[in-house]
Amino acid sequence: MIDSALVKIEKQPSAFSKNKNGNEAAAAMMKALVYHGPGKKSWDEKPKPAIQEPTDALVKIMKTTICGTDLHIMKGDVPTVTEGRIIGHEGVGIIEEAGTSVTSFKKGDHVLISCITSCGKCEYCKKTMYSHCEKGGWILGNLIDGTQAEYVRIPYADNSLYPIPPGTDEEALVMLSDILPTGFECGVLNGQVKPGATIAIIGAGPIGLAVLLTAQFYSPAIIIVIDQDDNRLAVAKTFGATHTINSATENAIEKVMGLTHGKGVDTAIEAVGIAATFELCEAIIGAGGHLANIGVHGKSVTLHLETLWSRNISITTRLVDTVSTPMLFKTVQAHKLDPQKLITHRFKLDQIVEAYETFGNAAKEKALKVILTN
Amino acid sequence: MIDSALVKIEKQPSAFSKNKNGNEAAAAMMKALVYHGPGKKSWDEKPKPAIQEPTDALVKIMKTTICGTDLHIMKGDVPTVTEGRIIGHEGVGIIEEAGTSVTSFKKGDHVLISCITSCGKCEYCKKTMYSHCEKGGWILGNLIDGTQAEYVRIPYADNSLYPIPPGTDEEALVMLSDILPTGFECGVLNGQVKPGATIAIIGAGPIGLAVLLTAQFYSPAIIIVIDQDDNRLAVAKTFGATHTINSATENAIEKVMGLTHGKGVDTAIEAVGIAATFELCEAIIGAGGHLANIGVHGKSVTLHLETLWSRNISITTRLVDTVSTPMLFKTVQAHKLDPQKLITHRFKLDQIVEAYETFGNAAKEKALKVILTN
Amino acid sequence: MIDSALVKIEKQPSAFSKNKNGNEAAAAMMKALVYHGPGKKSWDEKPKPAIQEPTDALVKIMKTTICGTDLHIMKGDVPTVTEGRIIGHEGVGIIEEAGTSVTSFKKGDHVLISCITSCGKCEYCKKTMYSHCEKGGWILGNLIDGTQAEYVRIPYADNSLYPIPPGTDEEALVMLSDILPTGFECGVLNGQVKPGATIAIIGAGPIGLAVLLTAQFYSPAIIIVIDQDDNRLAVAKTFGATHTINSATENAIEKVMGLTHGKGVDTAIEAVGIAATFELCEAIIGAGGHLANIGVHGKSVTLHLETLWSRNISITTRLVDTVSTPMLFKTVQAHKLDPQKLITHRFKLDQIVEAYETFGNAAKEKALKVILTN
Amino acid sequence: MIDSALVKIEKQPSAFSKNKNGNEAAAAMMKALVYHGPGKKSWDEKPKPAIQEPTDALVKIMKTTICGTDLHIMKGDVPTVTEGRIIGHEGVGIIEEAGTSVTSFKKGDHVLISCITSCGKCEYCKKTMYSHCEKGGWILGNLIDGTQAEYVRIPYADNSLYPIPPGTDEEALVMLSDILPTGFECGVLNGQVKPGATIAIIGAGPIGLAVLLTAQFYSPAIIIVIDQDDNRLAVAKTFGATHTINSATENAIEKVMGLTHGKGVDTAIEAVGIAATFELCEAIIGAGGHLANIGVHGKSVTLHLETLWSRNISITTRLVDTVSTPMLFKTVQAHKLDPQKLITHRFKLDQIVEAYETFGNAAKEKALKVILTN
Repeated sequence: MIDSALVKIEKQPSAFSKNKNGNEAAAAMMKALVYHGPGKKSWDEKPKPAIQEPTDALVKIMKTTICGTDLHIMKGDVPTVTEGRIIGHEGVGIIEEAGTSVTSFKKGDHVLISCITSCGKCEYCKKTMYSHCEKGGWILGNLIDGTQAEYVRIPYADNSLYPIPPGTDEEALVMLSDILPTGFECGVLNGQVKPGATIAIIGAGPIGLAVLLTAQFYSPAIIIVIDQDDNRLAVAKTFGATHTINSATENAIEKVMGLTHGKGVDTAIEAVGIAATFELCEAIIGAGGHLANIGVHGKSVTLHLETLWSRNISITTRLVDTVSTPMLFKTVQAHKLDPQKLITHRFKLDQIVEAYETFGNAAKEKALKVILTN
Repeated sequence: MIDSALVKIEKQPSAFSKNKNGNEAAAAMMKALVYHGPGKKSWDEKPKPAIQEPTDALVKIMKTTICGTDLHIMKGDVPTVTEGRIIGHEGVGIIEEAGTSVTSFKKGDHVLISCITSCGKCEYCKKTMYSHCEKGGWILGNLIDGTQAEYVRIPYADNSLYPIPPGTDEEALVMLSDILPTGFECGVLNGQVKPGATIAIIGAGPIGLAVLLTAQFYSPAIIIVIDQDDNRLAVAKTFGATHTINSATENAIEKVMGLTHGKGVDTAIEAVGIAATFELCEAIIGAGGHLANIGVHGKSVTLHLETLWSRNISITTRLVDTVSTPMLFKTVQAHKLDPQKLITHRFKLDQIVEAYETFGNAAKEKALKVILTN
Repeated sequence: MIDSALVKIEKQPSAFSKNKNGNEAAAAMMKALVYHGPGKKSWDEKPKPAIQEPTDALVKIMKTTICGTDLHIMKGDVPTVTEGRIIGHEGVGIIEEAGTSVTSFKKGDHVLISCITSCGKCEYCKKTMYSHCEKGGWILGNLIDGTQAEYVRIPYADNSLYPIPPGTDEEALVMLSDILPTGFECGVLNGQVKPGATIAIIGAGPIGLAVLLTAQFYSPAIIIVIDQDDNRLAVAKTFGATHTINSATENAIEKVMGLTHGKGVDTAIEAVGIAATFELCEAIIGAGGHLANIGVHGKSVTLHLETLWSRNISITTRLVDTVSTPMLFKTVQAHKLDPQKLITHRFKLDQIVEAYETFGNAAKEKALKVILTN
Repeated sequence: MIDSALVKIEKQPSAFSKNKNGNEAAAAMMKALVYHGPGKKSWDEKPKPAIQEPTDALVKIMKTTICGTDLHIMKGDVPTVTEGRIIGHEGVGIIEEAGTSVTSFKKGDHVLISCITSCGKCEYCKKTMYSHCEKGGWILGNLIDGTQAEYVRIPYADNSLYPIPPGTDEEALVMLSDILPTGFECGVLNGQVKPGATIAIIGAGPIGLAVLLTAQFYSPAIIIVIDQDDNRLAVAKTFGATHTINSATENAIEKVMGLTHGKGVDTAIEAVGIAATFELCEAIIGAGGHLANIGVHGKSVTLHLETLWSRNISITTRLVDTVSTPMLFKTVQAHKLDPQKLITHRFKLDQIVEAYETFGNAAKEKALKVILTN
């Protein structure tokens, strides 16, 4: 998930957090990471969530992680997140209780939590565009309480959870809640990566590296990764990048044009979210190419139609739909994809404040993804 | 064809215009419309062109027309067009002479001239992206002499001309040189127009109307045409628009949102070429929608990624490849498409200066396309 | 819907028809058409159905129709249909009662019933392949009681019913339960019908005519309809066929080859279900073409790979998914599609035995679709 | 290339083999493998070919190979091949002379010869369906003299040869003349192989193994290879098969169903060319799956539409177009594909009769592809 100051601002969090049975919360408490306004968070005691609708499931969190979006939330950049909200939209867990309408899961089942909630019934869900589900989308740790807690309530459980087969590495699967489908759907699928193609990935953070891993499903010939952090570029090399460019010290446009005989790349994937990196993509995209934006942009960018109008290109945007999650499961099981590679640090869940510290200083700590175990 | 100040600036006109046999031109003269620098044109005597390469054909023009691009050329907006150039990239004619390597055409054949020249051999041609042909693309009336003349030399004739079956309305076919494939490929195909869809076409000039005619190949349910000229909007209504909006007097965004229950359109097609109309498309495109740019832009535009990043949209650009020309032929022959509708005025070829006057005052003259008959 | 002796034979009808509350049925009765074994049917008094699962809806039938499949059922050709079953899988109605988990519909809503039931949760539903829904698919009037009755229970109502907007012609919509999505999805979409294409439709019964109507969404240039009934061919002409062939009196292969200059058609659509018509499609399909099978086949056919292996063709099969129903709604509302054309006879629901008589003698009665009004 | 008794039977070999200048052949001779009727071949002295059309190139063969099709030709199974024909449609070489219209190649250039000849101008070539080129297609070693010779004349050289960049392993490239594009286009592309998918390849000969290598461009999760030769199955394991089945000793259908939890495979690729293997594909294809035929069939097969009509499958056939050759080049250069793996034996070109002996006893000799060096 990637943050946005503007997404889903129309939704009423109250519609999701109302507890139909006010006094039952008194019976059970849990610990959770709570947002208390810009710059303030703490590991608090909170009421354990309860089933509210027959389509809900209550999940005991086994493992969760922290997303770049969570850092933005903590800074106060995501106005839909209000004070008192439990953060987090990734994780694996065990069904504690399933609502009466839930048919795919029962108590004790191990599940992967999708960062996107899907009702399975609305116009958008029927088009498999779950990101825009009229009742779901990105609501976890945003409009309703999330996964950085001992328990979480998952609405529309049948369509928003995935069963974990026995014997699967559950830690690795935490990467399938958000980061891998995001990189794959918004970057690789939208970028139409093809065998033999030349692609550039701008940004070697966790999302950019998720693109790098999943782009190789399609065997591109040349994979250029561009970042300003030499450590991350070194990681990218070990993950399959054929070329890396440090755009802080090298002229990225010139270097890409050199590598492509002046033609530009077939696919350019923006995984940062600022104007400079998007405009770099515009500059290196070849005729007939695909520019896939993943980054969350807080500001507009300049689109150079005066040169691009005749270049036969596509530019795409997307909030992850998590429609590829079943496929990603299969590639993990088949050892075509190793999400473990993205995990650099591990903490106990009650060390989450410390884990935020590490993840928030990613460059210094050489951190990619952290795992929190309950 | 749509003009561009920047396209193909690297090409050397001299490579195309060199006459291998300098003195033969003396033998035959013809009349042609010649560009003499910004604001200056005249109907001049010029040497009749001759075959230069074995893949060339010499075509006697029967009918031609004037494109919006030609008006830009005449203003001096297209720097690749140099003084002395014969203008024009549309028309039908009769083969006067075919080069020794030309196998598809012989003297006397009636042919449609494509605005795009294709060598049929280069990397781009093999991908059917003829617009970017390494030796062709848009060169007619740009880098080499064009069709507003009694004769024209067509390079790579086998891949750049189309045979006209006997009994076909040749006047209508002039619309297939450029305007109909441009509207169809850059607008309708790139915009992924589908049965039942809601589409908006911004700009009701000849290109916008070509989009309107060819979009109906796919039976969209709602077709909204937006322009500032009430006459053109009235024409759009008769051509199949279900709704029209005069953006000079109405709030186009509000009206489109009203027609689409606040969701925006499935496809928005930009057929003007200025920032305001492109940004209007950005404002009315629905989640999951397609914004297809046709317009030639002389300046950059503002891309509102701060709202669009999460909207699952595509934005496309394209210089027409004319890959749809054979299909358009079939739809004309089957009376699924009537290009005659676009023709409002007729002149003799030697009245071309007067025709430019009419076409240049399109709003006042209620002109769409003019036909010039040799 | 099209019948099959083999489809879903593994499903246990008892799993669907068991009434959790045995004695409540005594409280209400209704009339329905009941299958009593091969050749035997009657308009009987039956218990009014009741909600069994919270995802069910009880629908009062307003209008229904008879399908060719129902005739096969009546002959005893569909072994999954057991004695005592209420037949029918098409219709429009009004919600009488909605289960507690149903969120899209409430009592009094006008709804279209899809012939395909979709749970919205299983692996196939998530791929929008509802025809193979693990809990649904074609069950109505097959494994559970159907729509040729005063009331019908619809499982998974949220995903198996469609709201009818006020002011819509409900009679016309009955054609959207099965026949139009079947013709469109299995024939037109699978056949990849394109603007300017040449297509052949083999069979001018209701399904073939539904193909004919919806194929025109894509503006093919030449539409050849082949049948052995001159009346149906005459109807096809009025529906948009450009050419018709009576294969009983003409050499269909020769005539198609003549019309296509020896190349064969781009798309051949089989809408009968016997070996002879499928093999006719094989004989007339052009290189690079698409052969789309709709017909239900009780026997194998001969595939002439000794000629077809090198022809670059596709052959497709499909049980309708009804994924196109929302789109078809829009085209009806936009008057791009007029399903009324398919209706030739009207009866009151209690005249259904007589209606079967008419429909069963379609050629003599010149019957296409009949409407039964409750 | 795969043989066919029926392909292109309408073409007149004489149209291709006529020498415009009868007496020039006397000036130069070469050695070549000549077909002398069923069962008879020899390494003969033949006139060195000469340029016949300005679009021809004369190529000195450096390396060539033998195809399964050549074995069929030698048996007399391919009636288009007449006595006296020089066989072979694969190879790499050096341009000895380029016709006057050839612009992409000059004397001394190293080139890959495509098994498919493309004029680049006809209706089929413009659709990139080169296999059905009106003047080309599979003509080399069939309707005109081929590559198992010291020299070969290549018509339409610009569109039928590919430049070999310096430093490339030319021996490996011989596999790109036919076998790799055939496996990739007819099997992998037509079979729509996707990341995470389950695929079955029936036949582990050179073509089946070419499918196996190129299917991995798309990272399927499970790759089942079925054959009756344990040696070839062992090779398949080393090439990336996840499971192998010897259909002579195991029940292939049961085993595939066991591996796929009774669902069948997403893609089944037929690479043998007999009824039994095609019908095996029919039996194991899952709902929604793709059956891609590569094999050349001399007889019809039984298509079980009585079960398949409702399974939402596609069946495809294709003669290779070699449209993927440029992409395959890139994957070889990027070391994503190692065609060397397919080469088991090497001979000098003048040992070709012995090479046929080895290749003709593939099982005993454990032969896949042989390389013949001039």
